[in-house]
Amino acid sequence: MADLKTAAIQYAHDHQQQFLEELKEFVSIPSISTEPDNKDDVQRAAQWVAGCLKELGVEKVQVFPTARHPIVYGEYLKAGPSAPVALIYGHYDVQPAEPLDLWQSEPFQAQVRGENLYARGATDMKGQVLAVLDAIEAIIRTGSMPVNLKFIFEGEEEIGSPNLSHFIPKHKELLACDFAVNPDTGMIGRDQPTITYGLRGLAYYELRVYGPDHDLHSGQFGGGIHNPAQAICELIAGMHDDTFKVTLPGFYDKVRPISPEEHLALIQLPGVDEASVLKQTGAPAIYGEAAYAPIERISARPTLEVNGLLSGYTGSGSKTVLPAWAMAKISMRLVPDQDPDEVEGQLRAYLQAHAPKTIRWEVINMQGGPAAISDRNSLAVKAMVKAFDAVWGRQTIFRREGGSVPVVAHFQQHLKVETVNTGFSLPDDNMHGPNEKLHLPTWYKGIDTLINFFYFVADSR
Amino acid sequence: MADLKTAAIQYAHDHQQQFLEELKEFVSIPSISTEPDNKDDVQRAAQWVAGCLKELGVEKVQVFPTARHPIVYGEYLKAGPSAPVALIYGHYDVQPAEPLDLWQSEPFQAQVRGENLYARGATDMKGQVLAVLDAIEAIIRTGSMPVNLKFIFEGEEEIGSPNLSHFIPKHKELLACDFAVNPDTGMIGRDQPTITYGLRGLAYYELRVYGPDHDLHSGQFGGGIHNPAQAICELIAGMHDDTFKVTLPGFYDKVRPISPEEHLALIQLPGVDEASVLKQTGAPAIYGEAAYAPIERISARPTLEVNGLLSGYTGSGSKTVLPAWAMAKISMRLVPDQDPDEVEGQLRAYLQAHAPKTIRWEVINMQGGPAAISDRNSLAVKAMVKAFDAVWGRQTIFRREGGSVPVVAHFQQHLKVETVNTGFSLPDDNMHGPNEKLHLPTWYKGIDTLINFFYFVADSR
Repeated sequence: MADLKTAAIQYAHDHQQQFLEELKEFVSIPSISTEPDNKDDVQRAAQWVAGCLKELGVEKVQVFPTARHPIVYGEYLKAGPSAPVALIYGHYDVQPAEPLDLWQSEPFQAQVRGENLYARGATDMKGQVLAVLDAIEAIIRTGSMPVNLKFIFEGEEEIGSPNLSHFIPKHKELLACDFAVNPDTGMIGRDQPTITYGLRGLAYYELRVYGPDHDLHSGQFGGGIHNPAQAICELIAGMHDDTFKVTLPGFYDKVRPISPEEHLALIQLPGVDEASVLKQTGAPAIYGEAAYAPIERISARPTLEVNGLLSGYTGSGSKTVLPAWAMAKISMRLVPDQDPDEVEGQLRAYLQAHAPKTIRWEVINMQGGPAAISDRNSLAVKAMVKAFDAVWGRQTIFRREGGSVPVVAHFQQHLKVETVNTGFSLPDDNMHGPNEKLHLPTWYKGIDTLINFFYFVADSR
Repeated sequence: MADLKTAAIQYAHDHQQQFLEELKEFVSIPSISTEPDNKDDVQRAAQWVAGCLKELGVEKVQVFPTARHPIVYGEYLKAGPSAPVALIYGHYDVQPAEPLDLWQSEPFQAQVRGENLYARGATDMKGQVLAVLDAIEAIIRTGSMPVNLKFIFEGEEEIGSPNLSHFIPKHKELLACDFAVNPDTGMIGRDQPTITYGLRGLAYYELRVYGPDHDLHSGQFGGGIHNPAQAICELIAGMHDDTFKVTLPGFYDKVRPISPEEHLALIQLPGVDEASVLKQTGAPAIYGEAAYAPIERISARPTLEVNGLLSGYTGSGSKTVLPAWAMAKISMRLVPDQDPDEVEGQLRAYLQAHAPKTIRWEVINMQGGPAAISDRNSLAVKAMVKAFDAVWGRQTIFRREGGSVPVVAHFQQHLKVETVNTGFSLPDDNMHGPNEKLHLPTWYKGIDTLINFFYFVADSR
């Protein structure tokens, strides 16, 4: 077995250039799931992934249509009935690339600069998806896969996995497995292997505030009509109190407290102190709940963020308009045991209590998913720790992450399995921002790690 | 004289179709002064106006270049030394046409629908400029102009007349006159001749709030970094208190009180009560300082408005971004004796006191001009009242207006003359908004009124 593993790793090293070229092709597809104009591109990315699976010899490859973007399924069950079944999860959709003018190269024309590959989706998560497929290719081409595999790749992760959440409960048998692998959560720093055991949930809304029924001259009516841009600011300002807590009624009622042990473990993680957060973000000062450490604020506490604001005239120069409406994109990061549906009720209750009669408002639910906390001692997690140790020679760090991968909670709920959340993205990869990148040396080590993982997890039975 | 006037009015009636065609041509030039891309169009509009003056036989027609958009001057001094000199003011620039999708016809392709001409600039104020030139044409073609005329047309009114404010003090002799006429203030309602004796000033700023040095993933850092979109909302929300007063320190210190007599006169104006304001705006409820009537709030009290808001992701769907910056366009309408420069100091003082250390901010001064109050009993005003009476058979209404025409204060200060502020725009003309229009029957009566005015003002000496 050790010889086979060595051969697979050698194969992976010999094929790094091929893997990179394939990744460049994958990231050239602008599979932006939130943009209606890119619907065909998302479809194309699904077919591209399905093609990769078929080339590996994966069976029953199927592109399931959904109400929006398809789900790609496949299985490779050649390890025999005594070998475990791993469900590999990934998403082939990406975030929008805007603001385009801040990219140093075209977001959908990958460019290698130094040790990095720059492209939208390079790290989140087309690079991670291919890392798994490349590891599998290396094992299959040099031996045989010692674990049974199922694959589920969605095209809606960046919009909250609305259809996957329906697909999973309807396909419990098809997806039945012993554990899941989700390489979408990344590393805490270079050379710091990381497994994420906690993920925040998400509730995302568009708030629209309407005032006059048409844009007015601000001189003609200003002072006698409530300006919707001002009104939306007043409503948003009231959503946090002086201690930086969210004021939606009942928002913290179901928040699971952080235990003293977990607090200690979290604050001892490297690179998560105030200075590190400021260095990574470039922000002038730290912000948030004083009773919690920065790492807790950004990973283990719930938040409310304004993701977008739009009203009136935003071009160059000045226009003296009293706008007819204002819009804000507002999202909450949730922790166990908050429920996205309940949070929507809390937002509406806040608006009902605080919105003045001088305006009208509307809330549109854009996406939502619950938070998840995973078992840190499962066999699969232990195999991943061993794999990291073998490649990096470093102890794996366990952390909670502030981002959301709704599928983890769905796997827990419907398939009754734990997920190994890991991956090879770095904190400075500019995920979701301009100049998203993938650190290639880390990525290649990631492929080696996954080869190790599949062999270790087979051994662990 | 009466026969001459009758002939001039007959000429005007006979040439209504020609006047309309000329206006259609004028409004087809997208002379948007705030848009750098339209600089050539603004220049073209200046040449178009200069051409009109030359065709009328106006002398010394000159297009003065300025730091941005030109000033058109001309004079027609043929009425003899005993006749008064009137300085005709107008602007040939227009507001941006956005939001374009709300226009029922192209903003720069005039369309007559029913009794109205729809186009950007139709009422504000290309139609008003041509009303004066058409009245003069009618008088000249049927007799001789009984008043000496000077003309000053600028291309920067919609951006606060930054260069006219330098031009006037430098050209006091050139512009020397007995009174000025500004047809940019409009009527309070159909068949309600109106002279505006008070105009609010304007101070317009762009506020920029900066947080992290690049867009962040809101899940990755949300809760530990102050979101600039949230921060700008908090700053804007604090700019009004619970009684809807502006909180900038010292903002009301120099505000001239409204006298009991003026209060009574203002609230007795037709069509300015709460119900009328709500009908004109479509707003769900009235807003503002409880101690003041709606007409006072929108015309005689200072205000602070948000004219634009922009931050983060504003496209369709959702993007979980923690934006690097947020922008607001904020303007104050000023009343005597507030000073725009002092108001900028007050805004900066507010921000210095209230902006947290978690963000950086910047204020950019976009434009500013003081408020003005004019003599209601000048000879020119009396002649205009007589002219309105002759054409409309209705008593002229005196009002204060919420909008700003900085030139009126400059004429007072530098030329020591009063301005007759009037015009033939209507409150529902959608000035500055989509579907701006000019009510043609009112416009034609406006031309007749101006013919009467020139004859009456000559008689009044």
